[in-house]
Amino acid sequence: MKRVIVTGASGFIGRYTLQMLVQAGFEVHAVSRDPDPKLCEGVLWHHLDIMDDRSAGALCSSIEATHLMHLAWYTEHGKFWHAGENLDWVACSLRLLKQFVQYGGQRVVMAGSCAEYDWSRVDCCSEDQTPCNPATLYGVSKHALHQVAAAYCRNHQVELAWGRVFFLYGPGETGSRFVPAVVNGLLRQESVPCSSGVQVRDFMHVADVASAFVALLVSEASGAINIASGDSHTLRGIGEEAMRQIKGEGAVVFGALPDRQGDPAMLTADVTRLRDGVGWSPAYSLEQGLAETIAWWKQNREENDAR
Amino acid sequence: MKRVIVTGASGFIGRYTLQMLVQAGFEVHAVSRDPDPKLCEGVLWHHLDIMDDRSAGALCSSIEATHLMHLAWYTEHGKFWHAGENLDWVACSLRLLKQFVQYGGQRVVMAGSCAEYDWSRVDCCSEDQTPCNPATLYGVSKHALHQVAAAYCRNHQVELAWGRVFFLYGPGETGSRFVPAVVNGLLRQESVPCSSGVQVRDFMHVADVASAFVALLVSEASGAINIASGDSHTLRGIGEEAMRQIKGEGAVVFGALPDRQGDPAMLTADVTRLRDGVGWSPAYSLEQGLAETIAWWKQNREENDAR
Repeated sequence: MKRVIVTGASGFIGRYTLQMLVQAGFEVHAVSRDPDPKLCEGVLWHHLDIMDDRSAGALCSSIEATHLMHLAWYTEHGKFWHAGENLDWVACSLRLLKQFVQYGGQRVVMAGSCAEYDWSRVDCCSEDQTPCNPATLYGVSKHALHQVAAAYCRNHQVELAWGRVFFLYGPGETGSRFVPAVVNGLLRQESVPCSSGVQVRDFMHVADVASAFVALLVSEASGAINIASGDSHTLRGIGEEAMRQIKGEGAVVFGALPDRQGDPAMLTADVTRLRDGVGWSPAYSLEQGLAETIAWWKQNREENDAR
Repeated sequence: MKRVIVTGASGFIGRYTLQMLVQAGFEVHAVSRDPDPKLCEGVLWHHLDIMDDRSAGALCSSIEATHLMHLAWYTEHGKFWHAGENLDWVACSLRLLKQFVQYGGQRVVMAGSCAEYDWSRVDCCSEDQTPCNPATLYGVSKHALHQVAAAYCRNHQVELAWGRVFFLYGPGETGSRFVPAVVNGLLRQESVPCSSGVQVRDFMHVADVASAFVALLVSEASGAINIASGDSHTLRGIGEEAMRQIKGEGAVVFGALPDRQGDPAMLTADVTRLRDGVGWSPAYSLEQGLAETIAWWKQNREENDAR
């Protein structure tokens, strides 16, 4: 029996992985500080703070999982780039990995980030050819964790795949990020101030991100693998598509805010490994993904407005 | 008042730093799982396992140290290169650093290692020019800790100097390492099987290593700094000097053991930064250092033989 521990199981990506993991034949052990059993039937929830080493150890010893999908991290929008919490997450991730391996774990997938790459030298990021030289504490921490985890797993003949997440959007995303800010502004018929919008990015629907992580888990791929669509857009193009769908032409004001310092003009992903090595392709086009996201916000707007 | 927390205070290097730190005007808080108040007068000992986050937090909050000298690590000879304990030490080091900074810490010195460098491409290691690409879990872990600690300290305007230790020897070293194995074999009039001995290394007396760390702490230097003598010898040369001093000619048998796989022919240090940036030079020549070490083993041999 394949048993997987999923951390961050009620998080933005994690919640989308659960059903797919059940369907892939896993006994799914969902770990969260804030379990949400309504998310998916047939999942075993563990109400747990994995910062607490003893709890994490007890979890690993009681489950003896074969697989670990480690998605949890500190991700508070605007703060996570330089927050001291990144150190805590490196620490608890290493301790979790060690416990998982000690109790017989065989395969690990962890969430890395495009922020590991050297943003002064990127355009299309390749796992092999683009150097890693993160400019933020978040990127440094993810990259350092990958290095130690890879060396440790190699010593123990445990497989590790490290999924570098690029940009994502979709139902349930925190309202202050780019796509929900644009969509909600348009739905409220407010003007939405944005940066120049000329930045080119690889945005992927969160359900595709989750699907790629599950594909990675059941594959035999190892090492760093970009988790991205392979399809890139300017932020302006995304905003214009949202305006087209919501019929709020002109409401998104590009150039009203400064571009974020250090942000590269182009930050897209070489997805050869994901496509050919893992054999995975995205299901959503940007148009479909935005349509679904807009529909979700229409339903959930009141709740969001009340927050 | 300058207050320093020293971890690994009763360890091989740490014990030599204590007197120097007192003399440099620090209120010295020596942390150890195995305190040894006989080592130095005027030092405040804390009996503590820094793996225990709560104890480490309580320590930092009660002392509000200005300086941190973090020397503690897992170093069991032969095992430390690939031991899982390296993960625990990355984790507890990050948590200690965070607590130290949160309670007002201003300057940090940590012990790194020449094992961080790419040993397939070294001869004389330069902090700027020799790439880091560690081949061992120990080297990977130290290097990852440096990256995260440096980014964290930069965000908090805390100074960090990272001392990369090369090879060391001296009184009190674990008996199975190269210098004590040779010295003790010669003192017992036993033949000592060794590898080829053609490897060129920078060996430094442990009191000099400690002195360099203290100099680093009181300096304003930051970033990676090689902790080495700048003087290199073949292992054969060191063995021959020991034979000369103990008058045990021929007793050290070079070539009796295979060279360790992956060990570079030459692994020495560019000490420009330490010498010119920190303004520090070693006090011991190899001859003096070996003479003192031999004298110490003569005194302590019975105790050692009984182990």
